[in-house]
Amino acid sequence: MGAEETVRDLAAQMDIEISGDDPWDIQVHDDRFYRRVLADGSLGLGESYMEEWWDCEDLAEFFCRLFLNGIEQKVTAGLLLPSLAARVLNLQSLRRSPQVARAHYDTTVEHYRSMSDPYITLSCGYWKDADDLDEAQEAKLDLVCRKIGISEADRVLDIGCGFGSFARFAAERYGCSVTGINLSAEQVRVARELADGLPVEIVRCDYRETDCYLGDRPFDKVVSIGMFEHVGHKNYRTYMESVHRVLADGGFFLLHTIGSNVSQAFNDPWYDRYIFPNGMLPSARQVSGAIEGLFVMEDWHNFGPDYARTHQAWYERFDRNWSGSKSDPFYRMWKYFLLSSVGGFKARHKQVWQIVLSKGGVRPRYEPVT
Amino acid sequence: MGAEETVRDLAAQMDIEISGDDPWDIQVHDDRFYRRVLADGSLGLGESYMEEWWDCEDLAEFFCRLFLNGIEQKVTAGLLLPSLAARVLNLQSLRRSPQVARAHYDTTVEHYRSMSDPYITLSCGYWKDADDLDEAQEAKLDLVCRKIGISEADRVLDIGCGFGSFARFAAERYGCSVTGINLSAEQVRVARELADGLPVEIVRCDYRETDCYLGDRPFDKVVSIGMFEHVGHKNYRTYMESVHRVLADGGFFLLHTIGSNVSQAFNDPWYDRYIFPNGMLPSARQVSGAIEGLFVMEDWHNFGPDYARTHQAWYERFDRNWSGSKSDPFYRMWKYFLLSSVGGFKARHKQVWQIVLSKGGVRPRYEPVT
Repeated sequence: MGAEETVRDLAAQMDIEISGDDPWDIQVHDDRFYRRVLADGSLGLGESYMEEWWDCEDLAEFFCRLFLNGIEQKVTAGLLLPSLAARVLNLQSLRRSPQVARAHYDTTVEHYRSMSDPYITLSCGYWKDADDLDEAQEAKLDLVCRKIGISEADRVLDIGCGFGSFARFAAERYGCSVTGINLSAEQVRVARELADGLPVEIVRCDYRETDCYLGDRPFDKVVSIGMFEHVGHKNYRTYMESVHRVLADGGFFLLHTIGSNVSQAFNDPWYDRYIFPNGMLPSARQVSGAIEGLFVMEDWHNFGPDYARTHQAWYERFDRNWSGSKSDPFYRMWKYFLLSSVGGFKARHKQVWQIVLSKGGVRPRYEPVT
Repeated sequence: MGAEETVRDLAAQMDIEISGDDPWDIQVHDDRFYRRVLADGSLGLGESYMEEWWDCEDLAEFFCRLFLNGIEQKVTAGLLLPSLAARVLNLQSLRRSPQVARAHYDTTVEHYRSMSDPYITLSCGYWKDADDLDEAQEAKLDLVCRKIGISEADRVLDIGCGFGSFARFAAERYGCSVTGINLSAEQVRVARELADGLPVEIVRCDYRETDCYLGDRPFDKVVSIGMFEHVGHKNYRTYMESVHRVLADGGFFLLHTIGSNVSQAFNDPWYDRYIFPNGMLPSARQVSGAIEGLFVMEDWHNFGPDYARTHQAWYERFDRNWSGSKSDPFYRMWKYFLLSSVGGFKARHKQVWQIVLSKGGVRPRYEPVT
């Protein structure tokens, strides 16, 4: 079977037609697309999209169908397909190292401002009672504070604080003091600037360097929102041990992370190259293995579908504020990332977890908050 | 150090005094107690209580202190202690095979009636808005129905249905049909009798024998309340695969089980001999490993402290309705079991989990119910 026929056949199994009329069908502009997808899999699919070799009116629904119809099992079953195809088809490597690589982290705060809420929150919003992105992000930040009962007296640690979104919100609304830690010089700079005048301290260090941020007594509460995805499965236990070390007895740790339905030790190669270098989504088994004997799991809330709405809202703001050409690979990279994420969360292929953990267990009882 | 001194020293580390005045202190009536506890550990502690070698005014608080002060780590650290002590002290075996062994399962429904609610529900109640045991058990049964949206049209499976408590409640209040499965002839007999006239079928078979209860189409919903504790860690995956096989696509599985903070492959020896032969409490890691790739975890609710109140209420009813001698080893066995459980759940040493799982993920979203 030729490359085109193979790809058409696979697409048909996903309820997707090549050159079809439905919004989730795809239009191929460059016939090299077929061989590239077979040779490079997920990486080839994403890169060829960035290069405008194909298009799709409803990219989110396209991805939703891939996941609902088990694209991953099919690709896993034919794990050797890419390298095999490369040999059979005698392809030269089609991989490039585009200018946009690593763009996610080289990008300045202005890019994130263009797509996010006023707090520049780069994690899943909470849409239960929200009508727009700003409300959903405030609701999420507030949910975190309410779940672990943050009060004025608390000294709170935020591991991987981004642009200081949670730190500012919690300090402003609840009057607590917050220490945020972060490795990115750019994020630390911006977070410090934005938190000026608030009881917020931003420290540039690794979560393992507890001496750099602990101070003279343990934290009352610890939160970590959208950072565990960057820890890597080999470090999950070390991460939990670090939190355990800096948290007071009886204190809460709220872990907010994307979750995977199955345990993995690798990242999707396109996401790894363009969006999250060395990122990795934890499974429930991996998280619960890492906390065993350290914390009591008080509550495990899953609101994964809200990340579909969040990515959709980010896409809409990003698209509206984009003044350049829509053929620009940077624009197409972000569109591809945001809308494939919409599809992945809509299909329930990925989850969003808020896990409330306590050091030693809450007595008399912990009441779930939603 | 002599046996008495060793035990006094260990007790002191738990904030417990032998012959002390506080209600959680213990009074030793037979000096053989010290050597027996050292030789037989948990088994010796329980058996010597049944034989009235010692007493305690507030047994629940005594156990709470043991768990809060890390008795398990201390005993694990000195794992060889029992056999070592037996050799050093040149003890003959003090173990007996009391008449009461296996009494838990030989006991008729009348015993359970004497301590439980009108539905004879033998699992944790839900005390959030309840004032007494009957309310707490109805609230729990209703919580299960509400969490998975049971309606009249549903065909529901209850794995390990006990005396038919959930089956009757759900059929009466929600009008659904329920198939309960159970291995105990006595429970099957009573459950059938009590469910007479309701759309409830009770089948005596093992959960693995899916052909015996599946019928001509998959179940819309599956529940399992207080039965997973009897499955054993080697069967967790098989158990989940069986549920997956008999559940409709998009259907819910609600697992209600006691949970352990750490993974284990054994049972406490006293509980094993007298209350739960071959019982085993799963950890979060074991449960999430067993469901991986089969279900999406929609919600994980922990209301462990409610089992302290449930066991306390069971103890009070049992004690009130007991007409025999309170020196009877059967009475003391149940008192010991019920009050040590109060202590274990109060200390947050054990948890109660209701885990809502879906086959394929709920779209657009699952809303937690409390």
